[in-house]
Formats: sequence, C-alpha cells, structure tokens
Amino acid sequence: MNDSPRTVVGLDLGGTQVKGGFVLEGEQGTPDVEQTLARTVAMDTDLDAGADDLLDRLAGFARELGSNGPLGLGVPGVFEEPGGRLLRSANLKTLEGLDLGAELADRLDLPREHVCVDNDANVATYGEQWLGAGSGIQDLIMLTLGTGIGSGLVIDGQLYKGPTGKAAEVGHMVVRSLPANGSEDPDLRCGCGAYGCLERLASASAAIRRAGAAGLDTDLSQLCEVARAQPGPERELLFEIGFDLGAGLLATTAVLDVTCYVIGGGFGRSLDLLEPGIHAALAERDYGHVPPRLLPATLGASAGWIGAARMALDSLD
Amino acid sequence: MNDSPRTVVGLDLGGTQVKGGFVLEGEQGTPDVEQTLARTVAMDTDLDAGADDLLDRLAGFARELGSNGPLGLGVPGVFEEPGGRLLRSANLKTLEGLDLGAELADRLDLPREHVCVDNDANVATYGEQWLGAGSGIQDLIMLTLGTGIGSGLVIDGQLYKGPTGKAAEVGHMVVRSLPANGSEDPDLRCGCGAYGCLERLASASAAIRRAGAAGLDTDLSQLCEVARAQPGPERELLFEIGFDLGAGLLATTAVLDVTCYVIGGGFGRSLDLLEPGIHAALAERDYGHVPPRLLPATLGASAGWIGAARMALDSLD
Repeated sequence: MNDSPRTVVGLDLGGTQVKGGFVLEGEQGTPDVEQTLARTVAMDTDLDAGADDLLDRLAGFARELGSNGPLGLGVPGVFEEPGGRLLRSANLKTLEGLDLGAELADRLDLPREHVCVDNDANVATYGEQWLGAGSGIQDLIMLTLGTGIGSGLVIDGQLYKGPTGKAAEVGHMVVRSLPANGSEDPDLRCGCGAYGCLERLASASAAIRRAGAAGLDTDLSQLCEVARAQPGPERELLFEIGFDLGAGLLATTAVLDVTCYVIGGGFGRSLDLLEPGIHAALAERDYGHVPPRLLPATLGASAGWIGAARMALDSLD
Repeated sequence: MNDSPRTVVGLDLGGTQVKGGFVLEGEQGTPDVEQTLARTVAMDTDLDAGADDLLDRLAGFARELGSNGPLGLGVPGVFEEPGGRLLRSANLKTLEGLDLGAELADRLDLPREHVCVDNDANVATYGEQWLGAGSGIQDLIMLTLGTGIGSGLVIDGQLYKGPTGKAAEVGHMVVRSLPANGSEDPDLRCGCGAYGCLERLASASAAIRRAGAAGLDTDLSQLCEVARAQPGPERELLFEIGFDLGAGLLATTAVLDVTCYVIGGGFGRSLDLLEPGIHAALAERDYGHVPPRLLPATLGASAGWIGAARMALDSLD
C-alpha cells in the first residue's frame, strides 16, 4: 500500500439505474461540491441476468471509478441488524437474503469492514448533511418525497439507525389513525399494513391520487406550474397536501425535537408550494417551540452515492 | 472534603407534593432497589408563600435528607436550552423564569454543575431505566399516563433531550390529524394548540372523558375493575383507548425504532386492559419489525426522585 490517497467509491443502487462517483481519502472535510457533483455517472441496473451478474457489474463499475479503498453502497430496502443482510427490497427482489457487503468485498478484494451498505434514504440523508442542504447542521431529518416517503435521521452529525436498524421511517408515521371499528378510506391503508401513514397523504404518489380525485391534472409538474402561476384549486390542493405533511413534521418534532428538515425527491421540488400548508400546520402548536427550518435538498440524484462514499470514508476512522 | 461517599439527593417537585430521597456516591451500579424505594419521603409543595419560600424549603428538605453532594431535581415544565431556566410550568407558575439549579446551588453551597434540573417525565424515565422496569435496557421510551401523557427517551443508556431540550413529547404526537378545512371534534383540540395529539385520546383525562361520553363510570379504578371482571362496554372502551395508544406507539416506533416502552402513571396501572388494543394496533403493520416490548413501570411515585438522583450521580463522572 503506498501513501497516495485512496479512491473511495460510492454507489446508489436503484431499480433502473445505478449512480456512482468517487471521493478521495482525506476528503471528510469540505471537498469542492461542484467538482464532486460532476463525478456522478450511471449504469443500467438490468436485473434480467440475476443477482450474480448484477453484483459482478457493480464491482466492475466500482473498478471503472477507480475503487482502491473503502466502498459505500445505498440500496432501497430493509436490512437485518446486526448482520446487514438485505431482508426486503420491493424493486430488487433478486438481491433479497444476500449480504451485499460481503459479496462486493469478495469481488473487489476489500476487507469486509470497508464495504458499507445502507438504506438508500439513509445514504441520501448523509450526502445532503455532508455536502448539500444540511452542510454544517448536526441534527436533521431528510424526507424524500417520491413513490413513498423515504427518510433518514442525523443526530449529532451521525446517522441514527436505532437498535434494530429501522429508525427514521417518517413516511410510516401514523398521522390519521382510524378509531377501532372506524370506517376506512381505502386510499389511506398503507402498503406496510397500517392505516393513515404519512406517505399515503403526502408522497408524490399520494399527490397524483389526490389530484385525480379533485379532477385536476395528474402530471405533477404541470399541476405545480399552474399552481405557481395563479391561485385556484391546484394551489389549494398543494396547500392541503402541505398541511398533512406538516402534521407529520409536527409529530416527528414532538418525539425528536427536530430543528431542521431537508426536503428532497421529485415532489420535493414543489416545496415552495407545500410550504404555506406545512407552516400552517406547524403554527397550530404554541408550546415554546421554535418552528423547524425547511430546506430544499440541493444534491438531487447525486445525494445517494455521495452519502455512500462518505459512509465508506468514515470506515477509515 | 473527606473520603467517605457523599450523599446524593434527588427531589421530584410536583404541584402538591415534593418527593425525595437519597443514594450514596458510588451507587451508579446496582443499589438495592427495595432499600432505595424505602428512602422515599415527601413534603407539601405549598405555593402560597412564593418562590423564595419554596426554594428555601426545598433546600432545607435536601439538607434533612443528608445532602452533601450533587443534587438532582425533577420539575413539571419546559426548560430553556441551553441555560436551563424554567420557561413554562402550568402547576408551578411562580417558578417560571427562574434558574432553579442556580437558586438551589446558592442555597446549598454546591457548585452549579452539581445541581441537575430536568423535566419530571425525563427524571422518571431515567429512574425506571436505572432501577425499575427498564433496568438493563439501553434504549426505551417511558410514557406516563396521567392528566396528560409525559414521556422520556433513553438512547444508548442516556437521556436524549434533542438539540433544544424538547425531545420525547410523545403525548403530542399528532395521531389523528384533521385535514385542512376539516370539521373539528373539540375534544381532540389539545392544550398545546395542535389537533389530534395522542394525549387527547389516551391519557387518564381522555379516558375519563371517553367513559363519560359512553355513559360509563368515570372513576377509572371502578371502570377498570368492572372491565377486569367481565366482558362488556367497559372492556371495549379500554380496548379502543389502547388501540389509539397503539397508533401513537406505531408512529413513534417508525421514527425511532423503539424496542421497549415502559408504561407508568396512574392510568398506566391499567396496562393489562390496554394491551389487547395496543397489540391490535401494532399488529396492523407487517414490515419486518419485531413488535416493541411493553413493560409496566415498577417504581411508582418514587421513579422521579430516583432518576433525579441518578442524574446528579452522573454529574460526578
């Protein structure tokens, strides 16, 4: 091993694309954000040839990026803790049951402890906290408003995963619980089994469903463009969705005293339209709290690999 | 200063009574629980003569208990962080605005850093985690079901208070949020200003209100006795309240991956009757989670001073 800084690769494995990039050992401080963002590249995930093929190509992708040090990987799914095997992944079923860290360490001839695998929402949060909207902020929650609501929690500068690795599922906050024997709105029954989860009210999918139910454009970009241009039912709907999101933030803040939320994901780009509703919901409580800050995510689709790389850098400490 | 172990006093200041007791320096390990419990004594709070009089009597009470080392104090209220001044206390308004730690340090001639003041729910949680139901458990939340729902959060063996000292207000989880422009049930508007807080559904006060609305006995002890004796509307009501409490635990667990809840307070003694409803609510989610453990608190009204004393012991480390 020579003394030149090692190349630390981060990968963000999605159902259709893998995004990746690298940082150099010693960059834990403040690397140039623009330069880091410019390193984002992608390859197709392509699940057809099975798990072994995908893992081989992931290792190849890491090598192309110059990997000769720790590797970080973000994956949409639930992990077994301790141990780290992928328990469930709706979009990557072929990888379920595997210890992805061990598989990649083998293929890249890296020590197992230098391959760091985590949930995609956690790595994106860590990326934003390192180089993005949360830079310099030690305590925050990031919400990614997409098909569901992904989230990650940073306490005192460190990702907090909880005793069994399942913390920070803010999308599954129950904010509109049904009384025992109450009558259900089927739209509010969540895929997780519970009723009234936040992601049934305020994810991108929920927004599309609610737009359709209100007879409005179900293309969210179009909907938001109209809402920005003029008052009317589009703007009102986004206020209402923001208000529901605010109920979730109010509950989350009650448990964790959260002072900063970073909002990302496709639908997060409409934060300007959601904010009036969020603030109205937050303003209901008057209990000596300073309202939390709401910051739009700034790293876009690069947040995941950047956070994964940072996690890998940490393994050198 | 000689080498014999100092006497560390804990006080739990309530609106009508102050409970207190002592432990000896070096008892951070596992003091005899029965012996510690037997040290609980009380004095009347008596607010009539004002703040100075109360503080003088608190100092006198601590001296009677043998105080010659760090002192811990639990107070029902919200504190300013950093700094520690009491911002709000519904039942002890006369103390609002004061730095209680500095006041008592002066009166007892103790270094300021050896007088530790915290929220009553936090000290009770710390007490239960040290010598009560949570003994040996490193991560837990305690809920105290009383007039409201108090709560405290222990992460990795330490009280977690959040960046501004306001974490763990599980009673103010919004579990039955109202849509923007929805029609209100006035019973669900909380004193904090928000709508649908957990304590409006599952505190002792909420249970009394709900029993009255259902035409049942509003004496909770009587109600629970009937519910234990036979199936019927009493048992059903407690199932429903438990179900609502379960919605709050489901949400809290989603954020924090809580593996253990300790349930205390007067109404917490009905945990056996609430458990079926809580478990039904928790069972709705099927997402690879192990359901959290539910443990009845075991230190009763002594939890507060015991936790306050433990907090004071910690200040010696």
